[in-house]
Amino acid sequence: MQRTVERMLRTSPEPPFAPADPLCACIHACVECAQACTACADACIADHGPSLGRCIRINLDCADLCTVASRILSRQLEPDLGVVSMMLQLCATVCDACAYECTRHAGMHAHCDVCAAACRRCTEACRALLDTTIEPQRVHH
Amino acid sequence: MQRTVERMLRTSPEPPFAPADPLCACIHACVECAQACTACADACIADHGPSLGRCIRINLDCADLCTVASRILSRQLEPDLGVVSMMLQLCATVCDACAYECTRHAGMHAHCDVCAAACRRCTEACRALLDTTIEPQRVHH
Amino acid sequence: MQRTVERMLRTSPEPPFAPADPLCACIHACVECAQACTACADACIADHGPSLGRCIRINLDCADLCTVASRILSRQLEPDLGVVSMMLQLCATVCDACAYECTRHAGMHAHCDVCAAACRRCTEACRALLDTTIEPQRVHH
Amino acid sequence: MQRTVERMLRTSPEPPFAPADPLCACIHACVECAQACTACADACIADHGPSLGRCIRINLDCADLCTVASRILSRQLEPDLGVVSMMLQLCATVCDACAYECTRHAGMHAHCDVCAAACRRCTEACRALLDTTIEPQRVHH
Repeated sequence: MQRTVERMLRTSPEPPFAPADPLCACIHACVECAQACTACADACIADHGPSLGRCIRINLDCADLCTVASRILSRQLEPDLGVVSMMLQLCATVCDACAYECTRHAGMHAHCDVCAAACRRCTEACRALLDTTIEPQRVHH
Repeated sequence: MQRTVERMLRTSPEPPFAPADPLCACIHACVECAQACTACADACIADHGPSLGRCIRINLDCADLCTVASRILSRQLEPDLGVVSMMLQLCATVCDACAYECTRHAGMHAHCDVCAAACRRCTEACRALLDTTIEPQRVHH
Repeated sequence: MQRTVERMLRTSPEPPFAPADPLCACIHACVECAQACTACADACIADHGPSLGRCIRINLDCADLCTVASRILSRQLEPDLGVVSMMLQLCATVCDACAYECTRHAGMHAHCDVCAAACRRCTEACRALLDTTIEPQRVHH
Repeated sequence: MQRTVERMLRTSPEPPFAPADPLCACIHACVECAQACTACADACIADHGPSLGRCIRINLDCADLCTVASRILSRQLEPDLGVVSMMLQLCATVCDACAYECTRHAGMHAHCDVCAAACRRCTEACRALLDTTIEPQRVHH
């Protein structure tokens, strides 16, 4: 997967809008987290305790947002850097909230433990990309 | 469509996380805008001028984000209001940017004119929902 | 919503790949059904009975497939009619299955009743579009 | 990525609906292909030749369908095997069509070459999963 992400970036006629390494890492972390959250929501629904309602909800939101983040980051043509920056901040926030909620159930539900780790990796990858690439003056437009 | 959105909200076991009228209006505006942007990207690709690259790009991002916004707003169970608020702000921002770009081509391309109007309605609906519902103290968590 | 769908279709540089009326109706039915299924899954999770697991599952699948169907149908440029036809058949099938499952819970859960009606309208709209537009010889390629 | 897919499957309270190895491989191939197609559409738009219209179109459809396929395959709770089977057949078909179209431009556009390879891997993974898991009598319901 990661190799395909790198190759697609290298063969694009557009230069990457951010340094290639953290950009590739972030795309990869987003698709991994989206898959983990989709699977974790499903597993939580199967475990069907009422206390898992909040966990299922944030898993569904997180899966949707990580998928869209991976799409937006995969496009290099004329990005709106304000939109990209807000997307990364929102993705980091929802992954953080999902990691927090999953961690509360990690002792009882091993799938929540695996999912929380994927969420934390995604939060870090979004923040690393924000740190290296998005110039503040272009963001607050 | 709008009637189904309202009925689904009224029959949910959860109370709506925001006043029902602007919430329904925002869900409706998001799905309408997502469809218009998907169709506008397709029409711009068919028109294939190099000057439409930026318009296609923002249309694709806007379609993806409006779709996810409509999903997040359609869920009433234990929302993370910080995530919801950031989602609405991002959706308003991308719709604003898409409306701006489409308006530049509206004289030449009637589809851009129709799309720009849908984007403007969505920006307004997101801002109206932000104004009425999301308490600041719950947002900045 | 329906008016915007029609206008986008009329202003496209590409002729619609199918008669405009059933095509617009099908796009509209797909986005309506996707929204209803997303809301119904959420409501079923809130109701959290173990017997609703199957209903939540098919609601999530149906929401995802109807969203993609609405996107594919919104694109008029050089469609692969084999893909479009399979998409419509799959969409009709998942909506049918979701309507069946929701109807089983419609007496207990009013949201399942509203959702089942949206699913049935979508099945019919997909079949009506399949009937009028997609020539068999182009489908079985 | 692949390790997370496997772990999520192993920690689910539900047994996988198909043999774990080809199921994991297919989920992985779908998310990889979705990312490649999103990036390839973007690169083709940047290259903006009118002859790339068909390639952009099938890339967008393929990205959408592979994303949904990866979600449906990531859910183990009470799958509708008829829907899963049709989804796999549709995913194999659209990947095949996208690989064919991208291959036509592979000499001129290196991104189409990388994307075509991801599409072919996804077609094969879908067919391998169809071969091993979905019993015919459960499919034709």
